[in-house]
Amino acid sequence: MRVVDLIEKKRDGKELSKEEISFLLSEYLNGNMPDYQMSSFLMATYFNDMTANELLEFTMTMKNSGDTISFDDVRRFLVDKHSTGGVGDKVTIVLAPILAALGMGTTKLSGKGLGHTGGTIDKFESIKGFSFSNTRDELVSIANKTGIGLMGYSDRIVPLDKKLYSLRDVTGTVPSIPLIASSIMSKKLAIQSDVIILDVKVGDGAFMKDKEHAKELAERMIEIGKGVGKKVKVVLSNMDEPLGYSIGNANEIIESIEMLKGKGPEDLKEVVYTIASLALKAKGEIEELPDGKEKIDKVINDRSALQKLSEFISESGGDGNLINNYNLLPQSKSVLEVFSKKEGYISKIKTEEIGKAAMIIGAGRATKDDIIDHAVGIKIFKKVGDKISTGEKIAEIYYNDGKNVETSKNMILQAYTIKNDKVNKQKAILEIIE
Amino acid sequence: MRVVDLIEKKRDGKELSKEEISFLLSEYLNGNMPDYQMSSFLMATYFNDMTANELLEFTMTMKNSGDTISFDDVRRFLVDKHSTGGVGDKVTIVLAPILAALGMGTTKLSGKGLGHTGGTIDKFESIKGFSFSNTRDELVSIANKTGIGLMGYSDRIVPLDKKLYSLRDVTGTVPSIPLIASSIMSKKLAIQSDVIILDVKVGDGAFMKDKEHAKELAERMIEIGKGVGKKVKVVLSNMDEPLGYSIGNANEIIESIEMLKGKGPEDLKEVVYTIASLALKAKGEIEELPDGKEKIDKVINDRSALQKLSEFISESGGDGNLINNYNLLPQSKSVLEVFSKKEGYISKIKTEEIGKAAMIIGAGRATKDDIIDHAVGIKIFKKVGDKISTGEKIAEIYYNDGKNVETSKNMILQAYTIKNDKVNKQKAILEIIE
Repeated sequence: MRVVDLIEKKRDGKELSKEEISFLLSEYLNGNMPDYQMSSFLMATYFNDMTANELLEFTMTMKNSGDTISFDDVRRFLVDKHSTGGVGDKVTIVLAPILAALGMGTTKLSGKGLGHTGGTIDKFESIKGFSFSNTRDELVSIANKTGIGLMGYSDRIVPLDKKLYSLRDVTGTVPSIPLIASSIMSKKLAIQSDVIILDVKVGDGAFMKDKEHAKELAERMIEIGKGVGKKVKVVLSNMDEPLGYSIGNANEIIESIEMLKGKGPEDLKEVVYTIASLALKAKGEIEELPDGKEKIDKVINDRSALQKLSEFISESGGDGNLINNYNLLPQSKSVLEVFSKKEGYISKIKTEEIGKAAMIIGAGRATKDDIIDHAVGIKIFKKVGDKISTGEKIAEIYYNDGKNVETSKNMILQAYTIKNDKVNKQKAILEIIE
Repeated sequence: MRVVDLIEKKRDGKELSKEEISFLLSEYLNGNMPDYQMSSFLMATYFNDMTANELLEFTMTMKNSGDTISFDDVRRFLVDKHSTGGVGDKVTIVLAPILAALGMGTTKLSGKGLGHTGGTIDKFESIKGFSFSNTRDELVSIANKTGIGLMGYSDRIVPLDKKLYSLRDVTGTVPSIPLIASSIMSKKLAIQSDVIILDVKVGDGAFMKDKEHAKELAERMIEIGKGVGKKVKVVLSNMDEPLGYSIGNANEIIESIEMLKGKGPEDLKEVVYTIASLALKAKGEIEELPDGKEKIDKVINDRSALQKLSEFISESGGDGNLINNYNLLPQSKSVLEVFSKKEGYISKIKTEEIGKAAMIIGAGRATKDDIIDHAVGIKIFKKVGDKISTGEKIAEIYYNDGKNVETSKNMILQAYTIKNDKVNKQKAILEIIE
């Protein structure tokens, strides 16, 4: 078997066999297939896609390239919720305590933020003393106590994905649906869970800019799940505006806690309730998704979900009292208020720009090695469909270093499109694919 | 300007500007763009083609990556005939003396053979003492005396082509029409000539397996010529059987000399006459191609073309008398006769297989470093449309080392398809594109 023949096979639109896919990836992983061959294979894949069989084999070979983690000793129904990344996406922080209070468990590996999107790890690390589990055993211990088990990705989980992604990043082969699907699913399948729920973000602030491609990605991931007999549910959720009002790290923790106190933004609530209901249905506790509302309302109203978050923070080295004392979180030295120069209705928010406006003041990373300032961030006051007057506050920027704050302000103003005609509010959940 | 953005632009089917193409190629040539980025760009080009502007700029940047050679001091109308490579292709050896006898000049760089196709350099090097010009001045001196100026490619002519081709070879990006067109034309345009005549071989023994793709290649090369105001003519010639009857090196020299004595095979004659007529027309000596026949017949019948070949051999260090004494050429120790096991009509000859059958006994190179045995080769006795009886001779194998001779024999037998029904002879020239 020669690598070049397999590249030509893919180029010519023929299906690669199980053995051929496995040969190709193992040659690449062990260094026998140079990057220049893999990048031409990836570009051919961009154009010619993968068949269901190819995609399954590709994903499983990826998965098997490194360690896998079992959680047999976590005595709960295990949910692995994964988001494709967005602006203001704090769903995990709210969802995990709700699931815990509902008697389920979250066992998942979280990522760090890059570019205009944030990461769950960074948000929790706003909390003084907090550190994620470093080992499986530590995660299991915390998960058994609190129902919440989170740790960061290690290089030993799907090492092939890291190698492939670095190459895709510089060779124009990132936006290939089967490559994205296999990258996500190989990592999900490496970690034991009872159901995988994927939150595929769609819109300007997301990686998938349109619903058509997002749906295709969702279907390919469900296809992989079917291939290995794994329950996979997908929600397509809106990223044509930030989720909630807070974008940053410490401020997103506060917004999450507020939501667990029953005071969350509507769109965040819609996403969290939908995913929690999908989990309840997967576990067999409800028949139809709307039946979940009552159960979720209960764990919010009786504060049991909030209590779970507090316990998780304490177990992870932080001060659980911060749920009642936000002063325990880092705070920025200064605030810049941003006022609208127009009046009318918000018709559009360039969400990626808002993410970048937060990134350049230190809330995110432009490159992997950048250091995050957890205290800084942006709070927006207007979402799509809202009315605004000239001179009315549109946003606040919390900052420490004033260097980029004016640029950030201008980016926010330019991200908002204001029109005279009334505009409808956006739906948070665009579609549910089970 | 970032290389990855240009890869994405090509991937997305957008046109790259002159500056972008030139930036990309210069970054690659000077080592700032790694192979893995170039190979994904090449694969994207395979799928998305190049526009006329892109192709022209790509070709000219390739051309300007190294030395160019002017032949202002060769006082003749200069023809650069180029073949895309075939089996038994001895056109240059016959054509150059005819053009010289017709008062024109050949100034061209020739290649060595690789794989199943032979090279003009190798064939001439059958002649004891013969060596190609090593310098421009040497070529000019011989060309001014004989009308024939040939030298081998140097690494300094279009060095970018060598670098790109090595990469294409292992990344499945060889069969891209714009990449082939720019590779050929950049080298042609680096060498001064008054007309470029391209012999695009089509069929099983050629690089272009079907006429449709060959025609597309021809048109793209003519398009480049137009872009720089250069006369480019193309013939599509048949490679669904070897050209002539001899495949090898010394034996191809003999067949060429025989043709200059008026005893050449019909198909070789047709190709040589067509190309010589195109040259006469380009020079303005004839109005229509059929008008060339009389002039070419004359230089063959009066032996002036043969005399030119003899002079060229003498000037290049060989013995010009070999045109009358084939014993001056190296001869193989043994001959194996191959007899047909069937009777009927030859309906097909797998020409690439015949080329490989010659290669494995030493007439060609499997890899660049292989050494050629000039004495060995194959003579076929039957072409498509010929009748054959069981036990009738189909070929002779001239060999020195018996190691692969049985394999070679079997390859020849398997290359021939013999059917009961009568089959038409093949045309040597499939199309002329001016």
